[in-house]
Amino acid sequence: MQRIDNRLEDELRPITIQKQFTDKTPGSVLISAGGTMVLCTASLSDKLPPWMDPEDGRGWITAEYNMLPGSTSPRKKRERDGKVDGRTSEIQRLIGRSLRAVVDLERLGPRMLTVDCDVLQADGGTRTLSITGAMIAMLDALHSIPEFAGLTPGEERFPLKDYVAAVSVGLLEKTPLLDLCYQEDFAADVDMNVVMTGSGKFVEIQGTGEEATFDETELVQLLQLAKKGIRELIELQADTPHKVS
Amino acid sequence: MQRIDNRLEDELRPITIQKQFTDKTPGSVLISAGGTMVLCTASLSDKLPPWMDPEDGRGWITAEYNMLPGSTSPRKKRERDGKVDGRTSEIQRLIGRSLRAVVDLERLGPRMLTVDCDVLQADGGTRTLSITGAMIAMLDALHSIPEFAGLTPGEERFPLKDYVAAVSVGLLEKTPLLDLCYQEDFAADVDMNVVMTGSGKFVEIQGTGEEATFDETELVQLLQLAKKGIRELIELQADTPHKVS
Amino acid sequence: MQRIDNRLEDELRPITIQKQFTDKTPGSVLISAGGTMVLCTASLSDKLPPWMDPEDGRGWITAEYNMLPGSTSPRKKRERDGKVDGRTSEIQRLIGRSLRAVVDLERLGPRMLTVDCDVLQADGGTRTLSITGAMIAMLDALHSIPEFAGLTPGEERFPLKDYVAAVSVGLLEKTPLLDLCYQEDFAADVDMNVVMTGSGKFVEIQGTGEEATFDETELVQLLQLAKKGIRELIELQADTPHKVS
Amino acid sequence: MQRIDNRLEDELRPITIQKQFTDKTPGSVLISAGGTMVLCTASLSDKLPPWMDPEDGRGWITAEYNMLPGSTSPRKKRERDGKVDGRTSEIQRLIGRSLRAVVDLERLGPRMLTVDCDVLQADGGTRTLSITGAMIAMLDALHSIPEFAGLTPGEERFPLKDYVAAVSVGLLEKTPLLDLCYQEDFAADVDMNVVMTGSGKFVEIQGTGEEATFDETELVQLLQLAKKGIRELIELQADTPHKVS
Amino acid sequence: MQRIDNRLEDELRPITIQKQFTDKTPGSVLISAGGTMVLCTASLSDKLPPWMDPEDGRGWITAEYNMLPGSTSPRKKRERDGKVDGRTSEIQRLIGRSLRAVVDLERLGPRMLTVDCDVLQADGGTRTLSITGAMIAMLDALHSIPEFAGLTPGEERFPLKDYVAAVSVGLLEKTPLLDLCYQEDFAADVDMNVVMTGSGKFVEIQGTGEEATFDETELVQLLQLAKKGIRELIELQADTPHKVS
Amino acid sequence: MQRIDNRLEDELRPITIQKQFTDKTPGSVLISAGGTMVLCTASLSDKLPPWMDPEDGRGWITAEYNMLPGSTSPRKKRERDGKVDGRTSEIQRLIGRSLRAVVDLERLGPRMLTVDCDVLQADGGTRTLSITGAMIAMLDALHSIPEFAGLTPGEERFPLKDYVAAVSVGLLEKTPLLDLCYQEDFAADVDMNVVMTGSGKFVEIQGTGEEATFDETELVQLLQLAKKGIRELIELQADTPHKVS
Repeated sequence: MQRIDNRLEDELRPITIQKQFTDKTPGSVLISAGGTMVLCTASLSDKLPPWMDPEDGRGWITAEYNMLPGSTSPRKKRERDGKVDGRTSEIQRLIGRSLRAVVDLERLGPRMLTVDCDVLQADGGTRTLSITGAMIAMLDALHSIPEFAGLTPGEERFPLKDYVAAVSVGLLEKTPLLDLCYQEDFAADVDMNVVMTGSGKFVEIQGTGEEATFDETELVQLLQLAKKGIRELIELQADTPHKVS
Repeated sequence: MQRIDNRLEDELRPITIQKQFTDKTPGSVLISAGGTMVLCTASLSDKLPPWMDPEDGRGWITAEYNMLPGSTSPRKKRERDGKVDGRTSEIQRLIGRSLRAVVDLERLGPRMLTVDCDVLQADGGTRTLSITGAMIAMLDALHSIPEFAGLTPGEERFPLKDYVAAVSVGLLEKTPLLDLCYQEDFAADVDMNVVMTGSGKFVEIQGTGEEATFDETELVQLLQLAKKGIRELIELQADTPHKVS
Repeated sequence: MQRIDNRLEDELRPITIQKQFTDKTPGSVLISAGGTMVLCTASLSDKLPPWMDPEDGRGWITAEYNMLPGSTSPRKKRERDGKVDGRTSEIQRLIGRSLRAVVDLERLGPRMLTVDCDVLQADGGTRTLSITGAMIAMLDALHSIPEFAGLTPGEERFPLKDYVAAVSVGLLEKTPLLDLCYQEDFAADVDMNVVMTGSGKFVEIQGTGEEATFDETELVQLLQLAKKGIRELIELQADTPHKVS
Repeated sequence: MQRIDNRLEDELRPITIQKQFTDKTPGSVLISAGGTMVLCTASLSDKLPPWMDPEDGRGWITAEYNMLPGSTSPRKKRERDGKVDGRTSEIQRLIGRSLRAVVDLERLGPRMLTVDCDVLQADGGTRTLSITGAMIAMLDALHSIPEFAGLTPGEERFPLKDYVAAVSVGLLEKTPLLDLCYQEDFAADVDMNVVMTGSGKFVEIQGTGEEATFDETELVQLLQLAKKGIRELIELQADTPHKVS
Repeated sequence: MQRIDNRLEDELRPITIQKQFTDKTPGSVLISAGGTMVLCTASLSDKLPPWMDPEDGRGWITAEYNMLPGSTSPRKKRERDGKVDGRTSEIQRLIGRSLRAVVDLERLGPRMLTVDCDVLQADGGTRTLSITGAMIAMLDALHSIPEFAGLTPGEERFPLKDYVAAVSVGLLEKTPLLDLCYQEDFAADVDMNVVMTGSGKFVEIQGTGEEATFDETELVQLLQLAKKGIRELIELQADTPHKVS
Repeated sequence: MQRIDNRLEDELRPITIQKQFTDKTPGSVLISAGGTMVLCTASLSDKLPPWMDPEDGRGWITAEYNMLPGSTSPRKKRERDGKVDGRTSEIQRLIGRSLRAVVDLERLGPRMLTVDCDVLQADGGTRTLSITGAMIAMLDALHSIPEFAGLTPGEERFPLKDYVAAVSVGLLEKTPLLDLCYQEDFAADVDMNVVMTGSGKFVEIQGTGEEATFDETELVQLLQLAKKGIRELIELQADTPHKVS
């Protein structure tokens, strides 16, 4: 099958990662995959969410997702009327869960880490690229805390237990494809977002056939593709040099 | 593993289905699974959503989900302040997609079918039971349309191509369990909602490890359990006698 | 005058009362009068409203009213956009005042009792049936408090001083009618909701002539009808056996 | 019983009525009763509410009620956060129904008349004084329509069939009182708002015993007092000279 | 140039000031300039805004601005849907800043002074007349505090350092005009609002050419006109006798 | 006076301008001045605002302004709760007016041009830099319309009549300074935003002394500084090569 951008069926789009793109937050990453570009900033605060007991010693990680009006054509209306739409809310909950799955909230201590994923340009896969970029911004923010400086994911005292990344896969005319761009995503019968750790464990699988279905064989093929893509993304994450303050 | 209600690991909770529970909508089903009880009503209208072209001839199916304040303890605040929360929005989008996956919207014709799933009592699995009940309410609503009276899912002229049902599965202390009640759901490391058709195809898989992960072997075990449960649920759906007006 | 459902002018619709319909709240009553069906659940909490002084020792009783979308045809839009409409707000304030009129808030102690009245099916008289049902759910909730178990309305130590029930009356083509169904209510020139106690005292009278008026003779006739109906309703309330936990 | 302002039990507070207080609307009345002052402006428009059929030939009358922040002490927060509170909504619905009860909407023709009642100073009885003042502003607005100029309430071609006015009555320590000021209203056991026409017919009776009840004898006494007060108010309304443009 | 109301180019509209127009707030001023009429009420409270440290000893002054629906023709919709529009918000921020510019917040002490400017009738210049009236209401409110009774603006212990007033100026067909009425404002190419103190210092200059521009010479002419007008307004403010309680 | 970043009193911060930073909108400019960075995207649409008559032939230009949460420290809460705050609303109205002042809306034709200014990093002067950047994005968007391709501001057939740019000036310890960074802006007694055209005409002057005032001499000094800065900014705008599609 000929893909619109001539990629192989199991090929990721070209990824660029620019750390410290802005300087007001301890983590700030501009990440792009083909025509999708997301600015991920990670902020730290001592103010825990109201439902947490500050005496408890645990921290919390949350995420917000937003598409800038100019990130799509036609222009996307801002979500300012008090109704964060269902899709936005679903995505930011997914990003938050994905990040928390690889963090030991007790080791984090009574801190609130918020990652903002603002999509500057959208061409498919914005939620998965947000997770992949948010992971790096989160790592930089953790390194900005003196007691965690220089530690790496998986080290005993470090709250980050493992890397995490995400990718979309889908079935287009029965062919399983990795990392769908917008036009592929639009045409796909089945769309699946997979979030995995550096050690190859699943964090989330969200497979959905809008007006379609899929069988077990197809499921297995899609998961294999996702695994390959996520392995490559985590290598890129780990290769990006740590921010030195 | 001893389950809290003495069920086997692969055993559904007892299901009751009461059709025509109320009489203002063409479909109305009170469904319960153990301590979870949902009222599903299906309404028909000629008014399509604004983004659809009424000339186009296609119809649409949507769903709303809501928990009554008295369905849980402590009492759940009503979502009346203009902010439908993320969980609610996510669930009603899932129910809508699941129903649409088994309907031919062209055969449905320019009609709007809305299924309301109001949880009267909540004890885990409210979203999956909503899908299972909504399917029956939708079937009754379709039968109330004269041209579709008496047809069955899969018949050529009938918009409903297949049955659809859903169930939750999860990993609790590494043991895969079918149809989690609230206490099990709360304690589970991994929680997965599976939506399948009568012919055994996946419609949705949503597996999530909040602060946990799962590997491929566990994934396969969970999907097998879900399949067994959904097969039994679809038998119950098909056994419920059609509403005779 | 021939009524649409062949009732006498001073005849109530058939009433059914099902206690403990759900099990998450100390009071839960499914009440129906003809085609109107309301689920009343009564919850208890230690959290008083912010304007009350918890040191004061008094409790509070409040009510919320809601019509499920499928309770009417055409389907009723959910009140989720942050604007509880005037009618809803007026009704739930009326229910709350009616319940508080028969409760000694000091004897209740620093407790918050919330009664939720969710209309499952609407055929006129939803606000008055809500009051009649809410009274029973409130009684059960009070009985769930150990120090009040087994006491009856009017007993010295019991916060409930008397029973309370409500009914609608109206003038249809100059004829006074008891307990209007939707079609009668729609056609009536004058509509009056009356709330009374077991000892025959008025709690609320809300008589309104939308684009019409009424004179004193008619007022007296309407109040007599209401009295008769409420007497019968309170007998039914008192006959419903207490919930035994 | 000695009233706080030395009035007799059946005595109204002094009333002042200033027509054409502002000049942007066809009706504009500043009315005060003791320490309560309300600005009632009546606007006309050709734009009917969306639920009305403009072909139908009928008009509509609606009202809005609002208390200015400086009308009470402590200052009242503006209702700007999208939640018109229950009390406000209840009052403006009452004002609208009261006005419509004396208007023939067909004779009015396809016109929208909106009366705004803005309370500049509040000392009890704001809702009843709003009705009494709104009536005069409405009359002036009707007179501004050339075909109705110079006609009086009750004349055949005039949409206004009769005068309408309102007053509050209440039981304070078992004594029935007319036209309660704020301190009396606050202390009263039973509070009743009565709306009547010039010909002595009831339009609305809203009697309520917050944490109290009342019997039939008391009801009769309260209604007699209200009648007396409303008769005097309607004389004042009729005496106010018509606006001459 | 012939002005619509025959004023000279540098002539203010006739001003009337009525103090103690209402009696629930320590300051209450009804001010009018030609056809524009604003009710300014000043309330005092001990409750500082949440972002202030009450230990700090400083106070705060804020303002709210609102146009009553009947103040314009056609009727202005109330801002009740949770969205205070941009113009309203801009104006009330301007009024607040203007008042704070002449107050020593430390001398004021830990008090919150809120000035509400409700426009009863609008004919241009509502924001500047609000500032001029709010100043007088604020002065009365300050005098109601025992320790400040009888002091005058500029006296050492008095928080009010100077008078403040505002006026609009504009370019209409290249002619600079003082105190624009609505029709002039609508037609003007350049519109400028100027806020000045009694000692002739600028507090705010907001000059704007909607679809137009202006050069330095014109700027100087406009500022001269504004100065003249404000001098006259401040004389009127100072002449209004102090409220004697 | 020693400025925090060693600039001269009349020196702008270093400016960088990156056109076509994103590719979904006809205009897209990433502009930075010192530590302030704004992404300006200009979108075109055929959908005019509802209050415009599409038959009229005129177009419209509007702007939205937003600060990303990570653009400041501490993190800025998103404006998602339905309440666009006063400052935001004021700024986006200013940007819109400034752009419209240099456009001939009739020559533009029935088109809607929306410029979104999203602040990625904030260090003072975000509103003025937004105007300066929005001008360039608007120019590129106009060039993307075939009939205007290659034309320059001021050419007869081109809707853009002139360049427009903006800068902030202020009084810090009585010294007039050009282009204030955040720390200077925070400490300044008087803050003034000036918007001017390429031909040196004023579009907007907004001078404000929060808890301070300024005299005419200071006003003249501030305007001189602003003029110098804007002249330099407009040279930079004109030097940025046009986007070639």
